Amino acid sequence: MNALGFAARSATAPLESFAFERRAPRLDEVVIDILYCGVCHTDLHLARNHGGFTTYPIVPGHEIVGRVREVGTDVSRFKAGDMVGVGCMVDSCQQCKPCLKGWEQDCVEGATFTYNSIDRRDGSVTFGGYSDSITVRDKFVLQLPDGLDPAGAAPLLCAGITTWSPLHRWKVGASSKVAVIGLGGLGHMALKLAKALGADVTLFTRSAGKEEDAFSLGADHVVLSGDPEQMKSVAGRFDVIIDTVPYDHDVNPYMTTLALEGVLVLVGYMGPLATPVRAGSVVQGRRAISGSFIGGVPETQQMLDFCGQHGIVSDVEIIPIQQINEAYERMLKSDVKYRFVIDMASLKS
Amino acid sequence: MNALGFAARSATAPLESFAFERRAPRLDEVVIDILYCGVCHTDLHLARNHGGFTTYPIVPGHEIVGRVREVGTDVSRFKAGDMVGVGCMVDSCQQCKPCLKGWEQDCVEGATFTYNSIDRRDGSVTFGGYSDSITVRDKFVLQLPDGLDPAGAAPLLCAGITTWSPLHRWKVGASSKVAVIGLGGLGHMALKLAKALGADVTLFTRSAGKEEDAFSLGADHVVLSGDPEQMKSVAGRFDVIIDTVPYDHDVNPYMTTLALEGVLVLVGYMGPLATPVRAGSVVQGRRAISGSFIGGVPETQQMLDFCGQHGIVSDVEIIPIQQINEAYERMLKSDVKYRFVIDMASLKS
Repeated sequence: MNALGFAARSATAPLESFAFERRAPRLDEVVIDILYCGVCHTDLHLARNHGGFTTYPIVPGHEIVGRVREVGTDVSRFKAGDMVGVGCMVDSCQQCKPCLKGWEQDCVEGATFTYNSIDRRDGSVTFGGYSDSITVRDKFVLQLPDGLDPAGAAPLLCAGITTWSPLHRWKVGASSKVAVIGLGGLGHMALKLAKALGADVTLFTRSAGKEEDAFSLGADHVVLSGDPEQMKSVAGRFDVIIDTVPYDHDVNPYMTTLALEGVLVLVGYMGPLATPVRAGSVVQGRRAISGSFIGGVPETQQMLDFCGQHGIVSDVEIIPIQQINEAYERMLKSDVKYRFVIDMASLKS
Repeated sequence: MNALGFAARSATAPLESFAFERRAPRLDEVVIDILYCGVCHTDLHLARNHGGFTTYPIVPGHEIVGRVREVGTDVSRFKAGDMVGVGCMVDSCQQCKPCLKGWEQDCVEGATFTYNSIDRRDGSVTFGGYSDSITVRDKFVLQLPDGLDPAGAAPLLCAGITTWSPLHRWKVGASSKVAVIGLGGLGHMALKLAKALGADVTLFTRSAGKEEDAFSLGADHVVLSGDPEQMKSVAGRFDVIIDTVPYDHDVNPYMTTLALEGVLVLVGYMGPLATPVRAGSVVQGRRAISGSFIGGVPETQQMLDFCGQHGIVSDVEIIPIQQINEAYERMLKSDVKYRFVIDMASLKS
């Protein structure tokens, strides 16, 4: 089946039009006509080979919303016309303990990611959602709840689940005090989800002037992290902090704002924390530093259903695919509220 | 009431005989004739003013076992002759949220510690268990289960509760895989308690030759932490690691041995972790670095009752109090299996 997308052909090349083949569905696969695809920082990092493991050409995109075109013979959960989503993963071994628990992101063989990964059945490189269609194993296809704006729902498939998973794991509810560090794609979803879960929600930010936006997204309070007085005023307050900062930073000042047995959850950064973590900040009050990486498929469906019930979508700026390279530059300057989403109809123009 | 103990009169002076006053019991207090007192690293640190906040003279000791001599009018839980224990705390506000939860170690006003602390009713400095008697508020007196050797039970009051609390909080049981880093006073208690809880228990140690001791204390496996092959063989294995190392160390190699959602719990060190913690080590697999500091009074009683049921005491070397200064030097060289306990009858000799 012919497919059209946008791809980078090298670490320095801009993304441009790319014609390729999508496979016809295997017995357990679903073919999806893609309507919208969110733009995640990971797309940019992999397009530019920041990790050193990119295979070119690369078609990024793992925040996919679309409509089912056709299904394989063994697929019963979906039919042509269904509105569906695909996130960061398209397959996993389905046999190991994590997979059986619905933690496909922890598959001991390694999950198959939506792009720049190796299809575990035929060895081909996976191509992502910056394209007009995709063929995906049914178990990795999510049902999109009725009534959710499909463009706004696209970022739920990565930014949504990445923030939902720790909120859910650490049992955030009506009596919880939650803080979110950083107001980007992840941060704005964390505010919305924590608020909808009933928590009292605080935004930590380095820069003044974000109050109005933060409040409209669900924050009850805004704290300037560079202001010692404001930091002192929230000492010992939070049960859970979702730390979305995507670069190295000092976590110690935030640790002192955790309540007894509170946890700071890193979701945006994987590298070394250069500023020494003070052991006393976890010993005293039994606090913890943890982390979280996307989320499993059942949990993603749970998150989508929750968003359907609460009418939660991402705040997005819709762009035609021809503006993707400019969008990457703006994203690097945090010049987006709060997620770019590509309208895939633009591929035909 | 006249009392006799051993005290340090300056940071550089050896501990020596010290006569002082113990108060008669207030309405809610218990007077205890001390039989045994364990020797904790904290005693040495405070005697030598390593923290910079020691008041001299200081009478250390917070692993106290003794017999009730008399009780105040309002005390109903104890009577003369009862075998009891006292740990690191002798009072707290009893009003704040943590106190009401039984987390007196987290008292928002600060708990009153057994020595080198300020009595919250009369402002006097507290004197610890290196003495023939102590007067303590009944709520901070623990019942010693029948059948436990009183000398071996003394270290349960600090080393026992310090390792029990995180094992209990992180729900260690028959299906758990637990590792313990370090085989000292804390480490040997962690082995015994984790084993009695039914866990599969591994000791991490830097030095070979500890296998036989470790196995006899309850370890099922011993892993040399400096051997990359041995470390690789336990990758992804442990649900809980109790890290008893009392100085700065690199936690990253241990983090890779945690299972999904596993937690490393620091219990022996409060300072900065100079080697940068890799954020990826907590992001991947939702692992966590936490900590724990002694434990609350109800939890301490629970631990003692568990030890009574399972016949668990510390492995101790009993010394007369006249050998305390030599014991400190030996403790600094880890030359003790695994806890010194002072036989307080020696005070009279």
